[in-house]
Amino acid sequence: MSAHAQVIPPGPVDLTALPTDRTAGVKDSKKAGKKALVGLGPELSDLQERLFARGRRGSSRRLLLVLQGMDTSGKGGILRHTVGLVDPQGVRITSFKAPTEEERAHDFLWRIRRALPGPGIIGVFDRSHYEDVLVPRVHATVEPEEIERRYDVINEFEQGLVDSGTIVLKCLLHISPAEQKKRLLARLDQPTKHWKYNPHDVDERARWTDYRRAYEIAIERTNTEAAPWRLVPSDHKWYRNLAIGELLLATLRDLDLDWPVADFDVDAERARLTGEEPIA
Amino acid sequence: MSAHAQVIPPGPVDLTALPTDRTAGVKDSKKAGKKALVGLGPELSDLQERLFARGRRGSSRRLLLVLQGMDTSGKGGILRHTVGLVDPQGVRITSFKAPTEEERAHDFLWRIRRALPGPGIIGVFDRSHYEDVLVPRVHATVEPEEIERRYDVINEFEQGLVDSGTIVLKCLLHISPAEQKKRLLARLDQPTKHWKYNPHDVDERARWTDYRRAYEIAIERTNTEAAPWRLVPSDHKWYRNLAIGELLLATLRDLDLDWPVADFDVDAERARLTGEEPIA
Repeated sequence: MSAHAQVIPPGPVDLTALPTDRTAGVKDSKKAGKKALVGLGPELSDLQERLFARGRRGSSRRLLLVLQGMDTSGKGGILRHTVGLVDPQGVRITSFKAPTEEERAHDFLWRIRRALPGPGIIGVFDRSHYEDVLVPRVHATVEPEEIERRYDVINEFEQGLVDSGTIVLKCLLHISPAEQKKRLLARLDQPTKHWKYNPHDVDERARWTDYRRAYEIAIERTNTEAAPWRLVPSDHKWYRNLAIGELLLATLRDLDLDWPVADFDVDAERARLTGEEPIA
Repeated sequence: MSAHAQVIPPGPVDLTALPTDRTAGVKDSKKAGKKALVGLGPELSDLQERLFARGRRGSSRRLLLVLQGMDTSGKGGILRHTVGLVDPQGVRITSFKAPTEEERAHDFLWRIRRALPGPGIIGVFDRSHYEDVLVPRVHATVEPEEIERRYDVINEFEQGLVDSGTIVLKCLLHISPAEQKKRLLARLDQPTKHWKYNPHDVDERARWTDYRRAYEIAIERTNTEAAPWRLVPSDHKWYRNLAIGELLLATLRDLDLDWPVADFDVDAERARLTGEEPIA
């Protein structure tokens, strides 16, 4: 059982042609998929600790997982079920809401830069700087030239991150409008989910086609070799969570994360400890 | 099977008289203790989500767990095993190291204020503002009058946090010098743990009695009704992790965390969704 977050090929993007509902094609995929995700836990956890340890010992390597998608596409579910598999000490999660007054007084990347992961850390953005090219385009609140400029600024920014040791994983959580409708109705049906429901989300849903177009253009303009976009078919929650888990695992495996070597004399330290004066 | 992080009574503190090695007194406590901790997961997770949901809907309630203790006392273990039981989205962990140049240019609470949890969040401090009354006292790097002033500043600061809706849980992870020695030697014996070993920790260990005294005074001076200190016997890792888990659970239970009530018309929203125009 496995799931994939495949790189979107460079060039023009037609999201209606990309799958939202992929499964593993086996009977009872959901149960097997959940089990497969939990099965990734130990190795993911081990590799994350190695990344963290190396960060403490001078390595500049770090990860930045960028999660973008329509409302209900499951950013929160990934945080809980996939990111939750590793030590929270090594993870930095930032959820970006509509910018505050302070944030709007700065360049759109100001709040993003402040949330970047340190060495050895897995940073996760629940929404990101991409909101600043999506929402203004759909609502026409920013001049088209400024949005054009932002694509270039983003590419340069991400290239800089990559150059300084950050692996940037940009994921589009791709759901169908029918699946979103189902999820919004499910939130209404359960009083314990009412807090997640915001009538404004339905206003935004009415602009689905505009958002899709905004995503297509943003992905095309920022689908760089340094930081390519990946497609995560997200109509099935288990598939989405497993795809992200496998992406993290494959990424960490590729780094050949040996444990840091001691930069002190192990025997001398042992002698210091065993030969010390008694402590009162 | 249960473990306790009991409040330290007000007044002078003698840490040599307080237990480090408490167990549940049953055979195979370790195995049962680990199982008991995992058993807290579902309720802890449910209550944390309610706290988070209420934070999103205007409640100012939040938690701040302050972890203090000698090196190897297990702050990292608590983060991984206990805090790791809940959704990482609802947790904000900050590990305070020796202050940077920028941090030293500000008041000692500057970096602390920037790390406080938002509404609905469980904040965790791995070390904290208490380092600024412990280390300078032991190393005599700050005038005694300034350290005296800081106790008062801390009390006022924590009272302010409590007044604005934060529950402050200050925990001393209490280990014996013999247990610390065992743990430091264990780190030396395992190459995968060398990155956690710092020769400087052994220099600090030689000042054990000074640190103990600094803790005793700091606890006495800041053991307020608003934010009392708690003792976590930490020679047994499973006991320590379980004690923190039970403390978090009891604290959250006390808050009567009902789910937020919808601030919109549920039926009207359902009608909007079911009656919408088809999305292309």
